[in-house]
Formats: sequence, C-alpha cells, structure tokens
Amino acid sequence: MLQRLKLIVSYDGAHFAGWQSQKHGNTVQDCLERVFRQVAGIAIRVHGAGRTDAGVHALAQCAHVDIEWNRLTPPQWLAALNAGLPPQLRVLRCERVSNDFHARFSATGKVYQYQIWGGAILPPLHYGRVWHIHRPFDFKILETAAAKFIGRHDFARFAANRGHAEHDTVRNIRSVAVSRSGSLWKLQFDGDGFLYKMVRLMVGALTDCASGRLTIDQLVARIECQRNLGRRLAAPPQGLYLVRVRY
Amino acid sequence: MLQRLKLIVSYDGAHFAGWQSQKHGNTVQDCLERVFRQVAGIAIRVHGAGRTDAGVHALAQCAHVDIEWNRLTPPQWLAALNAGLPPQLRVLRCERVSNDFHARFSATGKVYQYQIWGGAILPPLHYGRVWHIHRPFDFKILETAAAKFIGRHDFARFAANRGHAEHDTVRNIRSVAVSRSGSLWKLQFDGDGFLYKMVRLMVGALTDCASGRLTIDQLVARIECQRNLGRRLAAPPQGLYLVRVRY
Repeated sequence: MLQRLKLIVSYDGAHFAGWQSQKHGNTVQDCLERVFRQVAGIAIRVHGAGRTDAGVHALAQCAHVDIEWNRLTPPQWLAALNAGLPPQLRVLRCERVSNDFHARFSATGKVYQYQIWGGAILPPLHYGRVWHIHRPFDFKILETAAAKFIGRHDFARFAANRGHAEHDTVRNIRSVAVSRSGSLWKLQFDGDGFLYKMVRLMVGALTDCASGRLTIDQLVARIECQRNLGRRLAAPPQGLYLVRVRY
Repeated sequence: MLQRLKLIVSYDGAHFAGWQSQKHGNTVQDCLERVFRQVAGIAIRVHGAGRTDAGVHALAQCAHVDIEWNRLTPPQWLAALNAGLPPQLRVLRCERVSNDFHARFSATGKVYQYQIWGGAILPPLHYGRVWHIHRPFDFKILETAAAKFIGRHDFARFAANRGHAEHDTVRNIRSVAVSRSGSLWKLQFDGDGFLYKMVRLMVGALTDCASGRLTIDQLVARIECQRNLGRRLAAPPQGLYLVRVRY
C-alpha cells in the first residue's frame, strides 16, 4: 500500500549547494534521499515544493515522498530521518497525506523573507544570513517602492533564465511587508508563486530605489514591462528565507 | 607617544577555540594580535575584559591595546582591523581612552545571556547558538529559581577550577531576567563579575530545577554553600553570549 508523506523541512542554506539534486551530492534533496534510502533500504524520490538556490535558507520548505513500505508511522519516520540528517537540515513535521497531494502542484502560494543589514559593520552572528549593504538607504522610498509589486503583474523582467523560457510569467503578489529594527531590514513577500530568482531581483530593484539608483517611475515601468531598463541587480542568496508554502 | 585604544569586539564562538591565545593560534586573541601585527608591523598585545571558552559567543566583548605608532586615527584602525579579520570576528567600535583604562581591571560588571531551545526539534538556524533541551520543563520554577541568585553571595559552588583556587568567590548579581518566546528561552545575568564557568553552572542548576532534578531548597543550599550537593551540571558553551562589559 502506497503511503504519501508530507514533510516540512528547514535548513541553513550556507551548508548546501541548493535544493536540487546534483552529481556531487551536497544538496538538500540529495541529503534527504540519502537518509530515506538508509531507513527504507530502497531509493525514494523526494519532491520539493520548489528549488532554492545555494545559500538560500528555508524555515519551512515542503516536500512529499511515496513510501511503499509502511512499517513506520509518520512520527517514527520523523525521528529516523532526523537521526540520520546533519544538524543543518531538519524535518520539522511529517504527516500522512492523500495521494493527490503534490508538494509542488498543490501549492497555492509561498512566503519569502529577505533580510538586509544596513549598518556599517556586519555583526558576526548575522554573517551568511543577511545582505550587508553599506550605502545610504531611504527607508520611506523602500516602503513606497515595495508596494508597487502588490497585485497581478507580468514579472518577466523579474525572472532569471533557467535555460528555458517560462511560458507564463504572470504572478499575483498578495502583500509586501517592510519592517526595520535598528540596522536590520526585513522584506516579506507573499504571493501565489514566484519565478526563478524573482524575489532576489525584486529586492535588488528595491535597494536600487532606496539608494537613488532607480526612480519609482522606472521601477513601475520595469514592472509593466514597458521597456528593458538595462542592468538588473539580483540580491545575494544568503539574505533569502523561504518562510512557508501555502496549500 | 603611547596611545591606548579601547575596542568593542563581537564574534561567533563556533569559529574559535575561545578567547585566550593558544599555540595553535585559532583563538580570538590570536586573530586580533595577528591583524594588529599586520597593520602596525610590530607585535601588539591585546588585553581582553575576560576569557570566553570555545563556543561562547560575544555580542560586545571589550579589549584594550597600546599603540606606540600613531599614524592611524581610531576610525582608520577600525577599518584596517576589520579588513584583515575573518567575518566571524569584527571590531564594532574603536576609540582612544586614557592610559589608566584597563579592559579587565576597570570593568565594573558584565551582562551574559544564555539561550535554551525547549522544543523537540532544533531548527537548523539555531544550531550552534542555543542549548537544545528535550526534557519537560517548568517555566514558573525556572523563574522562581533564577531569582534566588540575585544579590551578594559566595559563588564558590558555581565556579570551575581553573588550575588554581580563586581567592575571592563573592559576587553580586544585580538581576536575572528570564523570558520566553515560543520554544526559545533566554536567561540574562547582570553582575559585578563572574567566576570561571559561573553562568554555565548557574544555568545547569536552573535547568535541573525546571526539570525536577533539583528542588529550590537544594538550590538555595548550594548557593549558601551549606553542603556539597554532588553532581553539578555545566550548560554547554554554545548557548552563552557575552552581551556587554560595564565600566
């Protein structure tokens, strides 16, 4: 009897070459598949809700697996998986779901957070977990610019090429929340889906606005795909967190 | 003309074998002295406010150095030092002080924080930065027990032997603040001074109280040095943060 399990997974992106399986085996998916094979004795494919790049963190990534061998309950799977995983990768939850649940295709949205350190010196405990920006920054402009992304837009200008063109580049951004605590800035994006590198390209454009390199009108023109505005800045991966996947 | 500089230093304890200089050179003091030698061309001794053990973090450790060669201003020293240090170690501030300031002997107090993760699974981004405790825990008892440390006590039972006996083991604890946010517990200790491993032994005793292994009466007896109560638990270093040094 086939049993489909839904996993909620968290990882420190600094320790992995991204989500997707690669030959060298140092990815989150490889790590999970290795421990599934150890426990089950056979190869088990892990299907993620989406790929995160090297350096990108996940507070709650989602994945599913099909288990034909059902001697273990979900809590036993949880314990067995975590016992075999490195501490930089944990399965936070494991539950049985119906066979028509799919980590990627059933997702109705995702929440990402991006963290920026705006102070002159980066405190060591934030290293690898924020984007450190030294240049002067206008918080008000950042807030105003961020709101321009909200709604349904063609985000073709905010997608990197993954080797093939995306057919449908329209996405709906439900909210963009900007907050600041001292030198730490947090930008949270909630949307029905995100194109490849879309959050990092949005954050890059927002910081260009906040530091006076891009006007809000130019940003709006880019969102509306009116013309190609040249240089696009992608924020680095270590400031990005996949907060959760909505179903 | 001798110039004394006061440094405020922050580090991720996971990357260093503690503060104090050792032969292998992988300590915070070694790292700082190496970069001072690079910049100044001569050996410069770094005097810390206190030693932190391997794994212990510092948000704001304090140190002083004497510079005979005064071509650089304190802001220039700050930039030159950080340019040569690994990102896990930063000088946050650098200022000139009078020659009677001493990082260790002028200190009038210190603030330490200890972080505990009380949930079943440790999220990867907290790994190396908290003590993960699985067993059931009583927050109310922890709070009540923590308050017993406040005031002037002989903390001989809360000191590890550093190879020589401490002459004076009386210290004054100004406050112990306990807070909780979800599974993350924070204990903050503010005192005029701390013996070797004192915070970790206090935290060990508090967690023994909170999990029912030690009664509050037994804790008080230990604080009052009435008798040796056998086994003492030292909390592990990775949950400990030196928050600041008071002058």
